[in-house]
Amino acid sequence: MKVNVMSDILKANDLLARDIKDFLKQKAVVSWNIMGSPGSGKTSILERLIPMLPDTVKAAVIEGDLATSNDAERIAKTGAQTTQINTNGACHLDAAMIRAALDAIDLDKISLLFIENVGNLVCPSGYKLGETGRIIVSSTAEGDDKPEKYPSIFKTGDLVLINKTDLMDHTNFNMDVFKRGMRKINPGADMLLVSAAHGSGFEKLLDWVTQRLH
Amino acid sequence: MKVNVMSDILKANDLLARDIKDFLKQKAVVSWNIMGSPGSGKTSILERLIPMLPDTVKAAVIEGDLATSNDAERIAKTGAQTTQINTNGACHLDAAMIRAALDAIDLDKISLLFIENVGNLVCPSGYKLGETGRIIVSSTAEGDDKPEKYPSIFKTGDLVLINKTDLMDHTNFNMDVFKRGMRKINPGADMLLVSAAHGSGFEKLLDWVTQRLH
Repeated sequence: MKVNVMSDILKANDLLARDIKDFLKQKAVVSWNIMGSPGSGKTSILERLIPMLPDTVKAAVIEGDLATSNDAERIAKTGAQTTQINTNGACHLDAAMIRAALDAIDLDKISLLFIENVGNLVCPSGYKLGETGRIIVSSTAEGDDKPEKYPSIFKTGDLVLINKTDLMDHTNFNMDVFKRGMRKINPGADMLLVSAAHGSGFEKLLDWVTQRLH
Repeated sequence: MKVNVMSDILKANDLLARDIKDFLKQKAVVSWNIMGSPGSGKTSILERLIPMLPDTVKAAVIEGDLATSNDAERIAKTGAQTTQINTNGACHLDAAMIRAALDAIDLDKISLLFIENVGNLVCPSGYKLGETGRIIVSSTAEGDDKPEKYPSIFKTGDLVLINKTDLMDHTNFNMDVFKRGMRKINPGADMLLVSAAHGSGFEKLLDWVTQRLH
């Protein structure tokens, strides 16, 4: 008798991620895995974007954090269905966590799912969650060298949001250096400049998201 | 015959870390494991601090990054012995990497060793490097909720540097909220406010470091 040995945890994750992707597609739900450093502004971006969605487009949010439900409480105020995953120390979300969280979401009522990963510019990149695509948030306060220093995550992004443009004049962030680094790592990714604090750039982000609905 | 099974990778790391700690103590070298998010300002803090050290205190720096030698090149300009570790994707430094890097450093010429970990507010906390203690860098641009959201790292710090105080007025960072969160997670840690960009707070940081030399 043949014995199947599941030796590769990443492969096991990818198989489950594929099932989730198929399932979400059947439900006509487009999902974005949102990744970035702690404090890059992932939650603030969702807080501003979700209320701008047309009435016909309902969103749900899965929040991933080591601890606390702070972010889910912030997001719940937008009216979106919100589910908090506490990883209890794990540095990234994985497909099994998403599989469990989906049970708590009424997928027939939504067309968009935002999955906010644990704040981490390294580990989340290796774990598929069944997402349609990936959005990476990087703030000007973090510096313009991030794409080249954290290539594993930046090379997997479909969209990079350069957030906190309102702080740019107070830092030594050079937009050309950032964009050049990004083009080197991932020339196909889109880039948008936003300020979640002040609201600039959100019309373009809204267009980007709504153009990609099923 | 007894078979020793080394089942716990963290335990293996800790044993090597203990050896490194003993070895550095013999050499009268005090070492700090510096951890924080990408872009929190770890390198900038060292760039400003090292030139302020008295002539009698020589420092060396080990720089940990996924990729590039950007940070080591910046630090080398301070005159400190500098060694870059590229982890090639790994999300944290470990004791074996430090053991290898120490071969490249003339320990008889230094009394201080700064180990700048990979920018990551999660994974580095679990890996002892043989350090004397830990310094955590958190910038005001990251928000005031970080200690409670990333408790595993903040609870291991001897000193927390709240960096980018120059940006504080342009953000919604509330110092009381940060300090309260920190006191809850790790009441024994020292906290200092600094601005690596403008230089404020560095006299106090210099005192903190020089008071802890062997």
